[in-house]
Amino acid sequence: MLTVGEYLCDRVKSLGVDQIFGVPGDYVLDFMDVMLKSPLELVCTCNELNAGYAADAYARIKGLGAVCITYGVGGLSLINAVVGAYAERVPLIVISGAPNRSLRQRNLLLHHTTGDYNLQLSIMEKATVAAVSLTDASQAANQIEQTLAACIHHKRPVYIEIPMDLVNQPCPPPTIPSQQPAKLTDINALAEAVEEAVSLLEKAERPVILAGVEFNRFDLEDKLLALLEKTGYPITTTLLGKSCISEIHPQFIGNYVGALSGEYVRDRVETADCILCLGAIMSDMNLGGYTAKLDDNRLINANSEKVKIKHHFYQPIYLGDFLDGLINKLTPKDREKLDIKPASNSLNQVLNYEPEKALSNHYFYQRINAFIEDDFIVISDTGDAIVATMDILIHKNADFIGQAFYLSIGYSIPACLGASLASPQSRLIVFVGDGAFQMTAQELSTIIRHHLNPIIFLINNDGYTIERVIQDGAYNDLQPWKYHQLPQVFGESWSCEVFTEAELENALMTAKTNTHCLSFIEIHLDRWDCSQGLIRLGKALHKMQQPD
Amino acid sequence: MLTVGEYLCDRVKSLGVDQIFGVPGDYVLDFMDVMLKSPLELVCTCNELNAGYAADAYARIKGLGAVCITYGVGGLSLINAVVGAYAERVPLIVISGAPNRSLRQRNLLLHHTTGDYNLQLSIMEKATVAAVSLTDASQAANQIEQTLAACIHHKRPVYIEIPMDLVNQPCPPPTIPSQQPAKLTDINALAEAVEEAVSLLEKAERPVILAGVEFNRFDLEDKLLALLEKTGYPITTTLLGKSCISEIHPQFIGNYVGALSGEYVRDRVETADCILCLGAIMSDMNLGGYTAKLDDNRLINANSEKVKIKHHFYQPIYLGDFLDGLINKLTPKDREKLDIKPASNSLNQVLNYEPEKALSNHYFYQRINAFIEDDFIVISDTGDAIVATMDILIHKNADFIGQAFYLSIGYSIPACLGASLASPQSRLIVFVGDGAFQMTAQELSTIIRHHLNPIIFLINNDGYTIERVIQDGAYNDLQPWKYHQLPQVFGESWSCEVFTEAELENALMTAKTNTHCLSFIEIHLDRWDCSQGLIRLGKALHKMQQPD
Repeated sequence: MLTVGEYLCDRVKSLGVDQIFGVPGDYVLDFMDVMLKSPLELVCTCNELNAGYAADAYARIKGLGAVCITYGVGGLSLINAVVGAYAERVPLIVISGAPNRSLRQRNLLLHHTTGDYNLQLSIMEKATVAAVSLTDASQAANQIEQTLAACIHHKRPVYIEIPMDLVNQPCPPPTIPSQQPAKLTDINALAEAVEEAVSLLEKAERPVILAGVEFNRFDLEDKLLALLEKTGYPITTTLLGKSCISEIHPQFIGNYVGALSGEYVRDRVETADCILCLGAIMSDMNLGGYTAKLDDNRLINANSEKVKIKHHFYQPIYLGDFLDGLINKLTPKDREKLDIKPASNSLNQVLNYEPEKALSNHYFYQRINAFIEDDFIVISDTGDAIVATMDILIHKNADFIGQAFYLSIGYSIPACLGASLASPQSRLIVFVGDGAFQMTAQELSTIIRHHLNPIIFLINNDGYTIERVIQDGAYNDLQPWKYHQLPQVFGESWSCEVFTEAELENALMTAKTNTHCLSFIEIHLDRWDCSQGLIRLGKALHKMQQPD
Repeated sequence: MLTVGEYLCDRVKSLGVDQIFGVPGDYVLDFMDVMLKSPLELVCTCNELNAGYAADAYARIKGLGAVCITYGVGGLSLINAVVGAYAERVPLIVISGAPNRSLRQRNLLLHHTTGDYNLQLSIMEKATVAAVSLTDASQAANQIEQTLAACIHHKRPVYIEIPMDLVNQPCPPPTIPSQQPAKLTDINALAEAVEEAVSLLEKAERPVILAGVEFNRFDLEDKLLALLEKTGYPITTTLLGKSCISEIHPQFIGNYVGALSGEYVRDRVETADCILCLGAIMSDMNLGGYTAKLDDNRLINANSEKVKIKHHFYQPIYLGDFLDGLINKLTPKDREKLDIKPASNSLNQVLNYEPEKALSNHYFYQRINAFIEDDFIVISDTGDAIVATMDILIHKNADFIGQAFYLSIGYSIPACLGASLASPQSRLIVFVGDGAFQMTAQELSTIIRHHLNPIIFLINNDGYTIERVIQDGAYNDLQPWKYHQLPQVFGESWSCEVFTEAELENALMTAKTNTHCLSFIEIHLDRWDCSQGLIRLGKALHKMQQPD
């Protein structure tokens, strides 16, 4: 019979997790000892928040991630990463050690606590879809199964607290089935919703599909491709949904992010006579700070749980079932009449290369667009990075990762660690501003420690440029680090500084072939030189935040 | 009439806070703009958790601290610092920006949120003694007053959330009195408690005082000195209470931390015929991982709210009132019979200096003990640092800061920033292990940015030595940074590496006179070379965590 610790490791592994991110601490060492003997690999990070971000990015690639930390100081340092995963529907298993049950019952004042042994659980209950403190070895397997099932079903974080004295106790097998709860669909509602949607779409002359992040989370990309093939419709994606389809697909017209979008995409979406919005989280930034103009009267909006057409709902309807219905019933439209300008046309643009010229934001990201290859995964941190990389095309085997809704700055460096380990066959490309980098810079050392080979572009524009655009003040200044020197402090890596277009060429050439270690490229840009999208976003946010 | 933002700044300043630590973010920029025009100084840190630690240390010195962050990503990154302050009774004001009230009411999905606009407040309610989201300008002053009063009264963190649209609205003055709630004492209970305590102490032949952190928090150090002067009793302190009295006081015999303590202190306390325990938090680590042996039948235990003698309680009794009663009624004892070995005797020890010898843990801390001057403030991070510095004598104008109960590793570097600004006339000395340092290393850059001049000893013993002692495994290994090179990446500073006793002498000499910038000294110790106290602690903790 397995022990409780072994059972938990076994189940996490069987769900597809190979690496768990974490930080040791005395309340979790017994469980970590079990993990070290299991097929799971424990990847230790410099601090807990970073472990959370790494596991979040790992989950975005692999479909599930896990983080393991100690009690109190560990779990409570992790909250922001857990809430970020909750907001963006990332399935993340949080495992925390905990004091012996007998010590807790005696109300002793243990270190790393306030003396309230319900505090961490009660906070995690608010940040997850299921949270449990294992109470008894005989019930442990059932408690674990229920919690893991909630994670898989809702694609959101869950929390499992394992008291030290339970880790090595025998764990009777679960008495409840470990299978996933079925995706709920009301067949009658589905039939009617499909019929109404098909009727609207068949009548429309210029429909467009707006796809979101749930295609990735619920592994529905193949159905999206089938829908595109069947209908010929143009497709755009939200920022959070970016890369749910290969962006060199001939029907892909670019990302739609309200006023941040390019003019053609914005116009094409907002003047469509029917918008088929699928699997999107309708948050402010994801839709361009409420500058999106999606007319409810022309909108079919389906997500993982329901379908809304104009102003009425059909539920429960699982997105996959709705997609099947559409694929089955819709007919192709004449491509000529659909006004499709493929985003991949941007790859044909010829850059005006002036070697000695100081690098500009515009030139840099245009150049990067041509640099990206099929197996590159792009990670963008919050700030101008995520806005500016909006128009970088993500190729077929690749992915785009960014917290486009929750927007924690500092996410990208730990996320790079997580994504690199989740997809060792890919090359990781990170765009991170100086302000975001200072938040979590130490996790570079873990990237180096594991001999990973991402290319990290540190955009040094001397402060929080995104905030300068929204509202400027002394608080947007930063201590100017010698960023490109930092990787050498942490271990073996290659780094350089780039001021001109020629230096960028040299750096790209070196980085492309430097596949055995980290390439860290410090890009110097003027402090006010940001993307046009960011300027538009700043105006939109500022307007939104004013008192009515 | 002041605005809500101005009123809040005004009140925080008038309570003795000159610097607020924080990180900007769009939901809090309007309030930060008000702060920039106020007499408060905004000190921006690299991330929010670090801002929390800095404000916590600031509060330990100045009696009150404040931190200001943005909503969601900011506030939720701060939780661990807030809970640490709660556990160790640190009065900390947490101010968070928040979205416009009208946007919240319309249930829009705003960035940095999950869409639940009660989440951060409800989590902060669990981590503080009072938490409020300002709802209306007309009530704002009252809400602020009530919340600040709770902070001062309980010496624990509070939370104030200020929606953006309220910041610049006119703020009518409060209609409730802004004075502090009185400290509660039942006069009859006090008289009886004092009488019983005095009777026990007068009869005792070898009493001892065990003092804790509440002397610092409630500003009662003068009464403690008066009690010592009146009685002649020996005094020891808990680890969290360390430096609540000058450790070169002739009646101070050293810190009592159970089995971690030196033999004489342990014996003197545990064989005392009456132990007068005052203002202590009776946590596990603070008392040496439950290795303390304090016999209830010989114990008088008074804290800020009540007095316990043997097995009965008197309450409410405020500690200050109980002290006044004791000072008034107790009579002096003959010092000869009290068996007092002043801890300051350790200053007379002659070190056996061998220039070429590799530095040992024992030699290093002994040497430091002689290096400390009157105005040095010592900060020790969790790990062997806090255990090994237990026996460093803190002088009269100085202070010792460490999270001896909650024990967050990584606390010391941000705490150094906070304490330096709180006490610009002092020299800060930090002891931090490599594992703890990696957690929050970036805050070195803010220390450099503000031209502060602490001496930081980075104890490089190649991993989490404290955990190696408790339980060893691969998780205790770290990526080996070139630590002494890091300060140069961040800005102007002086750093060096120390392997031998002679190198230590040179480093100390340079650091002492290098008063214009940071001195960063990387101390190389063998990975298993730790303090005897830590070895004893490891055994104690390990034993405690086993299943009963």
